[in-house]
Amino acid sequence: MNCNYLGLDEFLLTSLREDIGTGDVTTNSCVPEDAVSSGVFRAKEPGIICGIGIAARVFELVDSCIKVTPKVNDGEPVKTGDIIAEISGKSRSILTAERTALNLLQHMSGVATKTAEAVKSISGTHAKIVDTRKIMPNLRVLDKYAVRMGGGSNHRFNLSDGVLIKDNHISAAGGITNAVRLARSSCPQTLKIEVETESLEQVNEAIDAGADIIMLDNMPPKLMAQAVQLIAGRALTEASGNMGERDLRAVAQTGVDFISIGALTHSVKALDISLKFG
Amino acid sequence: MNCNYLGLDEFLLTSLREDIGTGDVTTNSCVPEDAVSSGVFRAKEPGIICGIGIAARVFELVDSCIKVTPKVNDGEPVKTGDIIAEISGKSRSILTAERTALNLLQHMSGVATKTAEAVKSISGTHAKIVDTRKIMPNLRVLDKYAVRMGGGSNHRFNLSDGVLIKDNHISAAGGITNAVRLARSSCPQTLKIEVETESLEQVNEAIDAGADIIMLDNMPPKLMAQAVQLIAGRALTEASGNMGERDLRAVAQTGVDFISIGALTHSVKALDISLKFG
Amino acid sequence: MNCNYLGLDEFLLTSLREDIGTGDVTTNSCVPEDAVSSGVFRAKEPGIICGIGIAARVFELVDSCIKVTPKVNDGEPVKTGDIIAEISGKSRSILTAERTALNLLQHMSGVATKTAEAVKSISGTHAKIVDTRKIMPNLRVLDKYAVRMGGGSNHRFNLSDGVLIKDNHISAAGGITNAVRLARSSCPQTLKIEVETESLEQVNEAIDAGADIIMLDNMPPKLMAQAVQLIAGRALTEASGNMGERDLRAVAQTGVDFISIGALTHSVKALDISLKFG
Amino acid sequence: MNCNYLGLDEFLLTSLREDIGTGDVTTNSCVPEDAVSSGVFRAKEPGIICGIGIAARVFELVDSCIKVTPKVNDGEPVKTGDIIAEISGKSRSILTAERTALNLLQHMSGVATKTAEAVKSISGTHAKIVDTRKIMPNLRVLDKYAVRMGGGSNHRFNLSDGVLIKDNHISAAGGITNAVRLARSSCPQTLKIEVETESLEQVNEAIDAGADIIMLDNMPPKLMAQAVQLIAGRALTEASGNMGERDLRAVAQTGVDFISIGALTHSVKALDISLKFG
Amino acid sequence: MNCNYLGLDEFLLTSLREDIGTGDVTTNSCVPEDAVSSGVFRAKEPGIICGIGIAARVFELVDSCIKVTPKVNDGEPVKTGDIIAEISGKSRSILTAERTALNLLQHMSGVATKTAEAVKSISGTHAKIVDTRKIMPNLRVLDKYAVRMGGGSNHRFNLSDGVLIKDNHISAAGGITNAVRLARSSCPQTLKIEVETESLEQVNEAIDAGADIIMLDNMPPKLMAQAVQLIAGRALTEASGNMGERDLRAVAQTGVDFISIGALTHSVKALDISLKFG
Amino acid sequence: MNCNYLGLDEFLLTSLREDIGTGDVTTNSCVPEDAVSSGVFRAKEPGIICGIGIAARVFELVDSCIKVTPKVNDGEPVKTGDIIAEISGKSRSILTAERTALNLLQHMSGVATKTAEAVKSISGTHAKIVDTRKIMPNLRVLDKYAVRMGGGSNHRFNLSDGVLIKDNHISAAGGITNAVRLARSSCPQTLKIEVETESLEQVNEAIDAGADIIMLDNMPPKLMAQAVQLIAGRALTEASGNMGERDLRAVAQTGVDFISIGALTHSVKALDISLKFG
Repeated sequence: MNCNYLGLDEFLLTSLREDIGTGDVTTNSCVPEDAVSSGVFRAKEPGIICGIGIAARVFELVDSCIKVTPKVNDGEPVKTGDIIAEISGKSRSILTAERTALNLLQHMSGVATKTAEAVKSISGTHAKIVDTRKIMPNLRVLDKYAVRMGGGSNHRFNLSDGVLIKDNHISAAGGITNAVRLARSSCPQTLKIEVETESLEQVNEAIDAGADIIMLDNMPPKLMAQAVQLIAGRALTEASGNMGERDLRAVAQTGVDFISIGALTHSVKALDISLKFG
Repeated sequence: MNCNYLGLDEFLLTSLREDIGTGDVTTNSCVPEDAVSSGVFRAKEPGIICGIGIAARVFELVDSCIKVTPKVNDGEPVKTGDIIAEISGKSRSILTAERTALNLLQHMSGVATKTAEAVKSISGTHAKIVDTRKIMPNLRVLDKYAVRMGGGSNHRFNLSDGVLIKDNHISAAGGITNAVRLARSSCPQTLKIEVETESLEQVNEAIDAGADIIMLDNMPPKLMAQAVQLIAGRALTEASGNMGERDLRAVAQTGVDFISIGALTHSVKALDISLKFG
Repeated sequence: MNCNYLGLDEFLLTSLREDIGTGDVTTNSCVPEDAVSSGVFRAKEPGIICGIGIAARVFELVDSCIKVTPKVNDGEPVKTGDIIAEISGKSRSILTAERTALNLLQHMSGVATKTAEAVKSISGTHAKIVDTRKIMPNLRVLDKYAVRMGGGSNHRFNLSDGVLIKDNHISAAGGITNAVRLARSSCPQTLKIEVETESLEQVNEAIDAGADIIMLDNMPPKLMAQAVQLIAGRALTEASGNMGERDLRAVAQTGVDFISIGALTHSVKALDISLKFG
Repeated sequence: MNCNYLGLDEFLLTSLREDIGTGDVTTNSCVPEDAVSSGVFRAKEPGIICGIGIAARVFELVDSCIKVTPKVNDGEPVKTGDIIAEISGKSRSILTAERTALNLLQHMSGVATKTAEAVKSISGTHAKIVDTRKIMPNLRVLDKYAVRMGGGSNHRFNLSDGVLIKDNHISAAGGITNAVRLARSSCPQTLKIEVETESLEQVNEAIDAGADIIMLDNMPPKLMAQAVQLIAGRALTEASGNMGERDLRAVAQTGVDFISIGALTHSVKALDISLKFG
Repeated sequence: MNCNYLGLDEFLLTSLREDIGTGDVTTNSCVPEDAVSSGVFRAKEPGIICGIGIAARVFELVDSCIKVTPKVNDGEPVKTGDIIAEISGKSRSILTAERTALNLLQHMSGVATKTAEAVKSISGTHAKIVDTRKIMPNLRVLDKYAVRMGGGSNHRFNLSDGVLIKDNHISAAGGITNAVRLARSSCPQTLKIEVETESLEQVNEAIDAGADIIMLDNMPPKLMAQAVQLIAGRALTEASGNMGERDLRAVAQTGVDFISIGALTHSVKALDISLKFG
Repeated sequence: MNCNYLGLDEFLLTSLREDIGTGDVTTNSCVPEDAVSSGVFRAKEPGIICGIGIAARVFELVDSCIKVTPKVNDGEPVKTGDIIAEISGKSRSILTAERTALNLLQHMSGVATKTAEAVKSISGTHAKIVDTRKIMPNLRVLDKYAVRMGGGSNHRFNLSDGVLIKDNHISAAGGITNAVRLARSSCPQTLKIEVETESLEQVNEAIDAGADIIMLDNMPPKLMAQAVQLIAGRALTEASGNMGERDLRAVAQTGVDFISIGALTHSVKALDISLKFG
């Protein structure tokens, strides 16, 4: 399981250049060119690991002879002290690439861990945890992969692979009915049409307009449950609105199909992981 | 005050392309091409604002006719409900650029807010809060600017503009004395030399070797205070080691010159900011 | 109406560099630096014009003082001899940019013209003409815009904004039922699921699996009509398979919703357009 | 025989990214990660094959383990049903790269086939078929290679590697004589000088001015034959002007050295080629 | 007169980024953001100025409000102390861009000055001074422009816009006759064919083969004069071979058409130019 | 010993594309595709070799099968006639890459040779020869490496990894004292602070302000010696100002720590090196 994609190397090289600048002056002066080392990546707190392949690729791009041997797979849990991977190769190369690799590994593991916590909190319900577009630049593919590794699902990746009609679109189009009609007539037929609603009246209008998915935005659980019953399977339902600070179980128990949480990716706590030579 | 830099537009365009994909299908179908809107960015929680110029530039790159009028400056505090900026222009352009602009504004404000909290917690002491290289790719200049806006200072930007001799460098060079000698002889003379230490013995060796800055890594406050007294002004001192979870005031009171905190940038909580049309 | 998009300038600059090489030696030697000219773009055969904004942008990128005044809009028909646009500015700039601008204008007008012919051939029926991914590199956005200007609609833009389960996917998944189930569970919920079928048995299986769109591939009109009746509105239908050489009216009369034609973009005849100084 | 060039991989990667977007959602959900397949590329109509190495490189860039075994060489003819190449490797990789590879292979084979038809139509004459700069962006090297594979020759690649003085240059320079003099004095001495003419008077002036090549533009065969006789070997001659719709044999029989045809590359019919798994 | 070309800005931005790194720390800390300055560029030794437009563009790219007013044109001579241009604008911007602008201006002026000296040394003769491809990366267009500004002419820009058959090509082709025949049959007809020769036998063979230009490589003046007489106008002639250290007047007096000098661009002495605020 | 860095390949590919254009027409027509050759790089004048690894990488990028075997290492001296490296591989590839490789090898060897001469001229003194930022674009890392190979040391690489307060900064800040204070408070603590001085008064002020390095600009040897004595080890000292034309030994004997010479890199004479097939 990995998240290799065509632009990955270009992104990682840009990251490495940003961190290396015109050269790692400390390493190049203190460490002999032919010195070799081996070491381990170790979890310093419990969580879900994600990004081992990415971290390994960072090292490879700096020095194709570095060998990284994963001891857990992306998506698997670790306890404090667990070894995540072993590494060996030229000391200079490992030291120069270390920070870039760890930055990504710790961040992606942070996303996966946070997602897993959300998924666990609604276990046994029908709902799925999904992400949003609230992701820092250039991390769209990596963070969405981390969400999947944490047990979540992916919402649309960008503005071109999903139709989501929000309040401003509705105003501009002169109502939900017209907005759905316009989207249906000019968007590719391969895309579903989702409409954001804030009241049962809007929910009704969205159903009549033929929306494929209805977003229930910022609704208290009771109202949300009413909306789900009103929709009665005629459209998919998505709970939304500061879900990172809501009681997810209560939301899930309203019967919604999806709960989208921006905080999975916009407010990440990096998982503490160290690299020690041994 | 701003953080414009030569590669900024290129970075923002890459970010916009990632979020827009082949086009904003919802907006392009529902919103008339000539519709115009105006709206406000509003803080939904208290914090330090940072990134208004960056957000404005995002909109400009999508449509040079959009007008963004800041109501607070980068580095200034806001309360819940405060207006941060006003915006007006073509509705389509605003809607298409909105998420990319907010992602950056919320993240940078999150960094500034977290930094300001750290700075406040040590107010009255001699120490300065500084950042690290634990920053997600392509955000090095922006996040370090946000740290300054939050009242912090910047550590080195990358591996080429600071010499930091860590444990692995010390081992490879065969001791602190030799490592400092090697760095002194081959790094540009414009760079200071910092050495990481974990004991008073190492501190002593670093002083004798002529280190310009001594990092006191993972030391309990009492040991750190002893180290500061031992150094006695012969080198600058920097406290380091999971400082995001330490009692910063206690650390500052040891007399160190700098406290470096990775969590300022690796574990950011986005500041909640909304854009509403009015 | 235009098809401006964020990467457009970069694409046009690459195109210009390819054609200009290290400099237009003929123009730079024969034409005085301060000479100015004016001229007209004229249709040398009837068709639908598309790409005027793109052509104008090419000239602007070479020399921001060149003035291009369109006389028809994208999507409008012209007769032989009609003036499409007027141009004036420095002679050197116009001559250097001419070929790159005409190459794009003639190609896009060719796509729009071919699409308009297809649309006209099925006028009065329920079906819509849609494009495919059979488009030369870097022209995805421009050619799909030209299809719309010719009166057609757009199918998915790329492999990430539409699910299209073809024969090889079906074999790999072990049947249509399983393939649809797998796609439903791991693709973003914003995407519809389309299944390619070649027989009524497959159509039946696709309906039962809950496909949102059913492609009727390479079916003779009679079989296609049976398939449409069998589906009976439970899914959208798309006729496909060498449609560039089929009797489109007969296909449309089977009642399908969409007819996808690769030849709209993979086998384009450039519309003959000249630029003459006057 | 191949047309590898230094920027090829970059171009192909851009093409792949355009078609793959954020990922091939269908393949990634329906096809197991470890599934392997083998298949054949087969001609569905007769023509000249061109671009096998390019197509193979597309697959390699997606997955270096895919194996493509050509059964014909670029420039060789195929009949309907002929196998062009065999392919084997991971099913996912093949399916994801298929369309980009086929788009290029079918287009380049279309160019080669059209060129071969033109070459055949003038067989036995002295003339050579050459291309123009009427080529879609980024395809300059590939399409000109395809022209050679179809038996044609290449005219200049861009505005810097050939001097071609057209009517507008002549006007700006104040006549053919002056234009040739200016070009001779300021263009690199390594380039020949070609002059576009439309009458025998112009032909005479071009010869006197010392033109190396004389283009006979839009002349009826009889006039063209007179021009060729007038020139009498003192310059090379090139027939030009909507040659894609002219009787090429009649043109060749005027004795011209070159016939340049824009339609070889601006109005290409893709050769029908399929990839089937077996 | 200028040497603007389409990739210029991209090249200058890369140059600026290389010199600025993550920011001009000295200027940003010492100079107030709103300070303005004015100053002059002054020649500190005599020479030919070249690159003023390029230098001005460097400043513009950093800050579009900087105003540069040239006092001499590219190609004009200056004496020690002459003012070359005036500049005014924000102090920060001027200081940050200064080195990149001066590096280019001093280098290009150095090329123009060296060329002018060579041209002067052969004044009154028939020969022209031309450059070579011995130019540092990314400076091909700029250095060749500087050669023209110094009164020289340009040889081919790269390997695709001139045919130059050297000794190794001759060996590989099995002789001059065959090499010329091969080049004639497969290179675009717009290119002349030049052959390198080292003896009168080779000169004879090149003439018979129909070479358009004959290079006389490393010949002493007497032999070179014999070669020129032997050729007798049937081909152009070019003297070559360490011409930077030869008596150019003696070479020119052999009657050759061109003298190519690699040292014009591979061994440049930067012209001393200062920027002083006043 | 080598100077590989992450952006190297990208730079070399750009260089190759600039020189190759759309293809090496001479080689591709005259040299059979399967011909192989071997040859040697030979010094045609004495000097210090630098850039063998870079030259080898240029060939590798064109054709990974070319084999380059160095006979001397970067930094080692050669005499006229010495073999520097052997090469073997496909003749086409070698000929196409030759000029780009030689341009870099000859330039870098020129820098190393010039540096070695400067170093030799001050042998036995305490001073070190250092470079400046007067380096042509994109060559910063390569030229600074060549300086080290010639026995010199590196000054700061760019404006972000060294603080150098010059006359204009001093004026803008209102004096040396204030400038140093401002730099100290806002630049990263990892950077030393250097101040440019032109008189003993300024030297005094710089010492009092706590400058880490004091540049003695354009001082005659006697004044410089006084300055060094005045500083008395309280700061490092650097001699600067047209040092390329000064008596370096006299400068070194003033006791300065560093002598910075712009001419090492801004006025380079390429070392004469040939590649001959054997």
